[in-house]
Amino acid sequence: MRGTVYRVGAGPGDPDLLTLRAAKLLRQADIVFHDALVHEETLALATRARIVAVGKRCGRLSTAQRFINKQLVEAARHHAVVVRLKGGDPMLFGRAQEEIAALHQAGVTIEIVPGISAALSASADIGQSLTQRGLSRSVLFVTPRFGTGENRHEWARPASTADTVALYMASRQAAEISDGLIAAGVAPSRPAVFVENASLASRRMIATRVGDLAEAARQLGGGPALLLVGDVYQEVVAAAEIPTRDQSIQITA
Amino acid sequence: MRGTVYRVGAGPGDPDLLTLRAAKLLRQADIVFHDALVHEETLALATRARIVAVGKRCGRLSTAQRFINKQLVEAARHHAVVVRLKGGDPMLFGRAQEEIAALHQAGVTIEIVPGISAALSASADIGQSLTQRGLSRSVLFVTPRFGTGENRHEWARPASTADTVALYMASRQAAEISDGLIAAGVAPSRPAVFVENASLASRRMIATRVGDLAEAARQLGGGPALLLVGDVYQEVVAAAEIPTRDQSIQITA
Repeated sequence: MRGTVYRVGAGPGDPDLLTLRAAKLLRQADIVFHDALVHEETLALATRARIVAVGKRCGRLSTAQRFINKQLVEAARHHAVVVRLKGGDPMLFGRAQEEIAALHQAGVTIEIVPGISAALSASADIGQSLTQRGLSRSVLFVTPRFGTGENRHEWARPASTADTVALYMASRQAAEISDGLIAAGVAPSRPAVFVENASLASRRMIATRVGDLAEAARQLGGGPALLLVGDVYQEVVAAAEIPTRDQSIQITA
Repeated sequence: MRGTVYRVGAGPGDPDLLTLRAAKLLRQADIVFHDALVHEETLALATRARIVAVGKRCGRLSTAQRFINKQLVEAARHHAVVVRLKGGDPMLFGRAQEEIAALHQAGVTIEIVPGISAALSASADIGQSLTQRGLSRSVLFVTPRFGTGENRHEWARPASTADTVALYMASRQAAEISDGLIAAGVAPSRPAVFVENASLASRRMIATRVGDLAEAARQLGGGPALLLVGDVYQEVVAAAEIPTRDQSIQITA
């Protein structure tokens, strides 16, 4: 094997939230395989590289994971610097282990470069810390996945005991998420905030409550959305609820 | 008020894991207030700035939060670009809300710039994703804090239902942490990995199990340490347990 595969986090969207290390690797890259949500300014840093889109987005055409693995191994045979660019952080909700295992098995050297995950960026956008003295000392990062029958809301179980919850890929099936959280013991009145397009100029925040997620989600566009839930959002939600208590109101950055 | 206070994440330690945005702000900064664990190469980017250390570390001298707030407000009165540089991410375990509230109250404009949190960096170091298909779809970030009597292990409650747990500030009181996790229902045999000095050349990883944390922690130096717990570390721990099953063995990066 000639090359190294760098599995690099591209961060939440804003090209300025890339790490220095990631920027250096992109400048050196011979070939870059990137996700659907990576900013074009970020890709533009890879001036020497061939750029290959392999992104997945719910419900759209995507490249099968096995084919991506094969392409990465093949690229490492011919190139010194192969960059696999993932939205957010590459070790959180990114099917990292499947790619890493395939590369290890083929004898390819891997280096992983962390990235800013959407929940951190969304917290900066809102100006509300995920943790807060006296209110929250634990944060759960979770993706909902709906099983069947009794196990339908298995994913929501840890969400009832964590102080703050960040739900990734949460804009679809908001009614199901609401049901799941309530079934797990979360109060319908618990404050919640959707953050769409975190870190970008197009970002949008919808302050709501756990019982009203379906209604709130209807105000979102088609961008990637994160849902934050917890008592730390009490003030954010209260500020958005003037004048009517039961209406989800959009707040600006 | 003349200036803006930028509350900026410095990342886990490696100066290359700073964001482009943070590097730009440091270059423009008139004054920088920084935590104890920020790398000197990172501070060196602030060529125009006065550098003020206000860091806290367990058991050492530190600047009281109220005095830091006062200094930040005062700095915003006299300078255009005031950078408050925090280790890791500024909105996770960093007492952000107290500073933000004090600045808001004084009429100071704030901007928050996210940073790479230690758990993301430690995962890159280990080469093990926090989430994994079929094994883990939820990750809890928590700091232990020991109450008294029945509530002694209140902090550990959400740790029993999350698939993967990242415990920050976990190198001290490892025996207490072990007791707390087990009392909350976590199996003593559950795989665990201490990562000290994540992202730095001096980083160290100790693979162990929840029942053996106290023993494993004795092998750590004095650097900041994170504890990762979950079935996703099964292979990491198994690899370190050759030849004796019950001994915590240090593994190299």
